[in-house]
Amino acid sequence: MNQKSINTDYDRLEVHFQKINDLRHVSAIAGWDEASMMPAGGGEARAQAMSTLDVMIHQLVTESKVGEWIDGAKAGSSLDDWQVANLREIDRTWREATCMPEDLVAANSIARSKCEQAWRLHRGNNDWKAMEPLLAEVVSLAREEASCRSESTGLGLYDAMLNLYEPDVTSEQIDAVFADLKGFLPQFADKVVNLQSADEVLPVSGDFSDVKQKALGTALMSSLGFDFEHGRLDVSHHPFCGGVPDDVRITTRYDTSSFISSMMAVVHETGHAMYEQGLPHKWRSQPVGKALSMGTHESQSLLMEMQACRTQEFMQFVTPLVQRTFLGAVSNDPAWSVDNLHRLYTRVEKSLIRVDADEVTYPLHVILRYELEKQLIGGELAVADLPAAWNEKMMNFLDLSTEGNFVDGCLQDVHWPAGLFGYFPTYTLGAMTAAQLFAAVQREIPDLLVHIRRGDFTPLLKWLRANVHNKGKFLGFNDLMIAATGETLNAEYFKSHLEARYG
Amino acid sequence: MNQKSINTDYDRLEVHFQKINDLRHVSAIAGWDEASMMPAGGGEARAQAMSTLDVMIHQLVTESKVGEWIDGAKAGSSLDDWQVANLREIDRTWREATCMPEDLVAANSIARSKCEQAWRLHRGNNDWKAMEPLLAEVVSLAREEASCRSESTGLGLYDAMLNLYEPDVTSEQIDAVFADLKGFLPQFADKVVNLQSADEVLPVSGDFSDVKQKALGTALMSSLGFDFEHGRLDVSHHPFCGGVPDDVRITTRYDTSSFISSMMAVVHETGHAMYEQGLPHKWRSQPVGKALSMGTHESQSLLMEMQACRTQEFMQFVTPLVQRTFLGAVSNDPAWSVDNLHRLYTRVEKSLIRVDADEVTYPLHVILRYELEKQLIGGELAVADLPAAWNEKMMNFLDLSTEGNFVDGCLQDVHWPAGLFGYFPTYTLGAMTAAQLFAAVQREIPDLLVHIRRGDFTPLLKWLRANVHNKGKFLGFNDLMIAATGETLNAEYFKSHLEARYG
Repeated sequence: MNQKSINTDYDRLEVHFQKINDLRHVSAIAGWDEASMMPAGGGEARAQAMSTLDVMIHQLVTESKVGEWIDGAKAGSSLDDWQVANLREIDRTWREATCMPEDLVAANSIARSKCEQAWRLHRGNNDWKAMEPLLAEVVSLAREEASCRSESTGLGLYDAMLNLYEPDVTSEQIDAVFADLKGFLPQFADKVVNLQSADEVLPVSGDFSDVKQKALGTALMSSLGFDFEHGRLDVSHHPFCGGVPDDVRITTRYDTSSFISSMMAVVHETGHAMYEQGLPHKWRSQPVGKALSMGTHESQSLLMEMQACRTQEFMQFVTPLVQRTFLGAVSNDPAWSVDNLHRLYTRVEKSLIRVDADEVTYPLHVILRYELEKQLIGGELAVADLPAAWNEKMMNFLDLSTEGNFVDGCLQDVHWPAGLFGYFPTYTLGAMTAAQLFAAVQREIPDLLVHIRRGDFTPLLKWLRANVHNKGKFLGFNDLMIAATGETLNAEYFKSHLEARYG
Repeated sequence: MNQKSINTDYDRLEVHFQKINDLRHVSAIAGWDEASMMPAGGGEARAQAMSTLDVMIHQLVTESKVGEWIDGAKAGSSLDDWQVANLREIDRTWREATCMPEDLVAANSIARSKCEQAWRLHRGNNDWKAMEPLLAEVVSLAREEASCRSESTGLGLYDAMLNLYEPDVTSEQIDAVFADLKGFLPQFADKVVNLQSADEVLPVSGDFSDVKQKALGTALMSSLGFDFEHGRLDVSHHPFCGGVPDDVRITTRYDTSSFISSMMAVVHETGHAMYEQGLPHKWRSQPVGKALSMGTHESQSLLMEMQACRTQEFMQFVTPLVQRTFLGAVSNDPAWSVDNLHRLYTRVEKSLIRVDADEVTYPLHVILRYELEKQLIGGELAVADLPAAWNEKMMNFLDLSTEGNFVDGCLQDVHWPAGLFGYFPTYTLGAMTAAQLFAAVQREIPDLLVHIRRGDFTPLLKWLRANVHNKGKFLGFNDLMIAATGETLNAEYFKSHLEARYG
């Protein structure tokens, strides 16, 4: 970009956002390093360094000349379609960064930092009373934030927050698809648990050393289409996908008593990573060339993890590889059979913990949080009443009580202490999007599962590249779904998928 | 620093240089990542990102308000001794960054980049003719740079370049100590080679896997005093010490046919790393709290590698560890004996290549380059005459010819193509400094080698912390040497050391 002549306000914006992108690149690598490489003693100096870099990036985004250039570019000479979309995303970035008064930004930062630190301290003691005032402060400030963002975007309070993670999707749209799921999942979960109670599932044991698990993980990444010339696999406390599109860093963790969770974490993060690696080369350093939304990102990881890689066909491909990795040879041991491994992978259980939930019950955890956070931001639910409201919904959705059990109830997740309101629904939007996209690929490539049984993910990746990855933020979410699947997001494909696999 | 009230121009400088330090922190971690972690495909985007960050850092250093604050601080209220020293170093940093016109900085950058790339391409073909005009351009611009720096510092042309790496040391001082070495080393090298020709040295073979070599390396790092809470060991193409004082990243490489070079590289880089880890906590984010000079840095690595860890006493400590690591048990195999391993470690050989040279012949490689680069910068030697001048000195110093052999002659090192004039002498200043410091420690701790034989480096590290590491840039090099050893740098201790070990 920097090599082109710079004549117009639009050109100036591209140069400026290339610079911002460069600093974010360094921040992303240092962030990955912090989670996967940094010794503990480096933390304090790193926090200081990252904070300085983040402030500089924020200053660059919010410079007043950016607003002037945006105005100039809008009034200026003709732009091609991608430039128009890029200008739209630059404008969005600028408005999101500038719509809040400085003192609210600062107050938010302090309240969230205090609340998150307290959360790490108090949840172990199940200490709701200590957390309540801190969380109330975070919610109160988040409502002020929502009010600012509402004014800037013209959206309702909650939608203005949701818009940060899922632009183009409204709570009205989410209400409709979540209502559909809510009417289906509780009974369906009961049915599946009942059905599975008849299954015999054999435990799998062996030498699940880090080295062997890593060998399996990298072999799978290669099969799925991860480009090791532009990324790597490492270890961190929680698996994540970081880095930059040209150099994607995914992580996992190894449990030496079981290879399953790490293997599926690798598949999940590889889905995220291939989205990043597939972002449009020409535009990936500009706002329009980034991933579309949190839900879309999650759809790419869940498409790999849940749609493609919990199929019988995937298990047929991976079982001999798993056996060779951990047993040294192909085996007839019934515990290591395709069917037993597949049963292990697809167990459904009603539990209190979202992150441990299977794909059938997971959306209920999300809908519970979505409904509560919408009420919190809307002012219809006081933080003091949160534990009771949580318990009531948990009883309704999953027949489980969290009365007096705050750590497995409303103190379970870091999202609210960290001020992330509007984020939770993206997990289930991702799951539904994954199902709808996978159904569309299968319509276009009827023998897709035959390819997967052979370990050939090329047709799937090619389709995702063309229909999702290469689009960046060129289309909005709803337009992308129509272009890729013929219809806007709905719950039918996800429900059909669950019925076919578990019903 | 940021928490203090900011009232004076001096305070403003501290805040500003903390910010610069933070960005350099991120740059250092990303630089380490590039050399040790980054997949090749990430290189292009990384180069762009690092360049943007470097430009931002340079802009911060050269902001005109920095100059105003420096003037204000000099004229302002009373500062304590460390603040005075910090202001001196801030002033030096600012002057070094601002004394050159922008167009010369840009021309230098382009010429060096071209020449360095050509060097990587042409040295393999021994193609002097292709290199000569590019190197001539680099030298010509370096002479312009020297002229600017001379005007800014009041130093002579070459000294103004030397001053970038070794402030406080003049070429007059170097001429004197190098003359001393030149009068001693050529004959001494012949004598040692002759003496050693009678030694029987047995080859050592075994299973030198990366895993085992790394286990030995980390065990040694712990013994020497490396703090793994604030650093780590990884692999890169060339060993180096990077990162930041709170999180020092050293690297090595593993040759599976021999453990010796990697073991000594680890010891060498650990010496660098412990210097960084020992920089004054209160000041390490300010210019005065950084390492004193390149020569001082090298002295800390060579003190560990050459002074402490090629002794008989160190070999007595490390031999059982080496045997257990690679043989699985302590062994009586004469090839694995203390004496044989020590002989392997202390072989002297006259060769053409600096980086492969032993500690006896290494200074001759350095003196050759020092004398030539001084003439190049002074305008007394034309680039066209460089190969002949190199050959003549190589014949004089080591009886070896490089006639027509440019790749092992004046195309050997990247320093000149990269524009690093004034850097070479710091290697040998480091070697002499190491010998003089080690002699001083031994005077104060007469049983130091007894400690080392037991693998106890605590007394040595404690002395280095107090006399070198914790000083940062508080004292100039000459004052530091007087405070630590009672006299300024001279060649006597280095010569005595060589005579004691090899003579």
